[in-house]
Amino acid sequence: MAHNLRDISSFNEEEMDAFLASFDTVLTDCDGVLWIGNTPLEGSVQVINRFKELGKKVFLVSNNCISTVNQYMRKIKKFGLHVTEDEVIIPTLVAISYLKEQNLKKKAYILSSSAMKEMLESSDIICSSDVGPDHAVKNVEEFKAEIQNLDQEVGAVVVDFDANINYIKMMKAVLHLRDPQCLFVAGATDVFVPAEDVTVIGPGCFISTIEMLSGRKAVVAGKPGSLIKDFISKRHPLNPERTLMIGDSISTDMQLATNCGFQKLLVLSGFSALEDTKEDSTNLPHYYAKTLGHLLPLLPSI
Amino acid sequence: MAHNLRDISSFNEEEMDAFLASFDTVLTDCDGVLWIGNTPLEGSVQVINRFKELGKKVFLVSNNCISTVNQYMRKIKKFGLHVTEDEVIIPTLVAISYLKEQNLKKKAYILSSSAMKEMLESSDIICSSDVGPDHAVKNVEEFKAEIQNLDQEVGAVVVDFDANINYIKMMKAVLHLRDPQCLFVAGATDVFVPAEDVTVIGPGCFISTIEMLSGRKAVVAGKPGSLIKDFISKRHPLNPERTLMIGDSISTDMQLATNCGFQKLLVLSGFSALEDTKEDSTNLPHYYAKTLGHLLPLLPSI
Repeated sequence: MAHNLRDISSFNEEEMDAFLASFDTVLTDCDGVLWIGNTPLEGSVQVINRFKELGKKVFLVSNNCISTVNQYMRKIKKFGLHVTEDEVIIPTLVAISYLKEQNLKKKAYILSSSAMKEMLESSDIICSSDVGPDHAVKNVEEFKAEIQNLDQEVGAVVVDFDANINYIKMMKAVLHLRDPQCLFVAGATDVFVPAEDVTVIGPGCFISTIEMLSGRKAVVAGKPGSLIKDFISKRHPLNPERTLMIGDSISTDMQLATNCGFQKLLVLSGFSALEDTKEDSTNLPHYYAKTLGHLLPLLPSI
Repeated sequence: MAHNLRDISSFNEEEMDAFLASFDTVLTDCDGVLWIGNTPLEGSVQVINRFKELGKKVFLVSNNCISTVNQYMRKIKKFGLHVTEDEVIIPTLVAISYLKEQNLKKKAYILSSSAMKEMLESSDIICSSDVGPDHAVKNVEEFKAEIQNLDQEVGAVVVDFDANINYIKMMKAVLHLRDPQCLFVAGATDVFVPAEDVTVIGPGCFISTIEMLSGRKAVVAGKPGSLIKDFISKRHPLNPERTLMIGDSISTDMQLATNCGFQKLLVLSGFSALEDTKEDSTNLPHYYAKTLGHLLPLLPSI
């Protein structure tokens, strides 16, 4: 095992006190850390609630835009997490904030879920496209005609998880991005997405293709993009050294923490395994735990 | 300019004689070499006809499966090319030959054009899927249900240009390929496809994603895969050193020639420019010409 990677659940009281004294803000991933799908992970909710009772500022930082914040709040309440709406961060919020800051006056061409569309529209961003499938074509001539059928009022391309993403939509995104004024925002850039019993192609694969063909680079609203840090900083002063990032993914959560200079706690209840840390020395966590719930018996009670 | 790269249209009579004596088989790409879209390139047809009159064996080797061989033959006849049906090679033919050799008894799940489907079915390969769009889904639950709705009779996945390729189709391909017995064949693996006024995403981008998610590697029926060489060898004995490959693309045509040990002639009427040769020393052509038609005045008349 690489040096300095410490199993937090083996800490004695003194070590736990030093650990708790080392941060005042906690960012935690959700799926794979607090719950898996619709099943909460034992003890994890209590650990987050205890952190809050101990005076820590907590943000839930998910990369999943297929739910609205309102839908997240229903889950959070159901699981007994004491987290408020403004403590929930998803890429949709970061993307909206970026598009507003860039003063987008035109429409957004979106390849995303209906939840993302709903949140963009609630923020007065007009979506050019619908979230269903695009037109089907019979042959190459129809394909060429369809991809040239571009909405001239588009000023931004936004790509996240879109269950109906297809060739025509991707080509339209590429063609919109020929205009250097057209903004380009990616939500999650995950290449694989574990979805309970099956791992599906992540939006990152489609984003890479659009990037390559357009010669453009997307601004990343999700983890591990550091835009998320600026977004949180506007709500709450972040001292990176005194911020703890908890996550189950080395490539998103630990990478975000590396990018931002946060402390890193990897939990093994989700995407990444302990041996994966050997393959990415840049994103080596400071701590690990089998599950977040394993910390509960070690935390001081109030 | 790199050494040994010679402009063939500057050859004197002696050099041209030596060049002509150095090969007895010609493989030539079509689009960008003989024609562009529906417009023949001046003199190129006459050069190919002259090669045949001079006793060379000629094969047209296209990477484009959106036409059937019958459709190619109509174009070939219209342009006055003296080439017969068995001298036209497209990845569809190579894929069919491969699937037959592998003794495919089950269905093929195809992501391709109607032309490719028509040729597969004419060869008694049953296609599991249609060439139009797959079902549209309303949400993630429907997406998950749809991708799990797999035809159990599939024994091969075939991917080429599919104007309606989408997330669901790609995921179904990935899931079929979980079965190590399931064959996996790619037609063209081009990453970019120039289509007259617009460059579109090539099938190679989608194939790469399917390869990454499935952990499988496709057998390549198109250029630059060397399966095409074995396919031609069954029709006509190929002596690689005495075979000239003519093409406009370094990454497909010149790469095929490198893979197979052919002589290489790059024409500058299509995809690649002369300066592109500097970036890929492995696939440096032996000769180049502005267009194939530039050779015509230098060829001996009959």
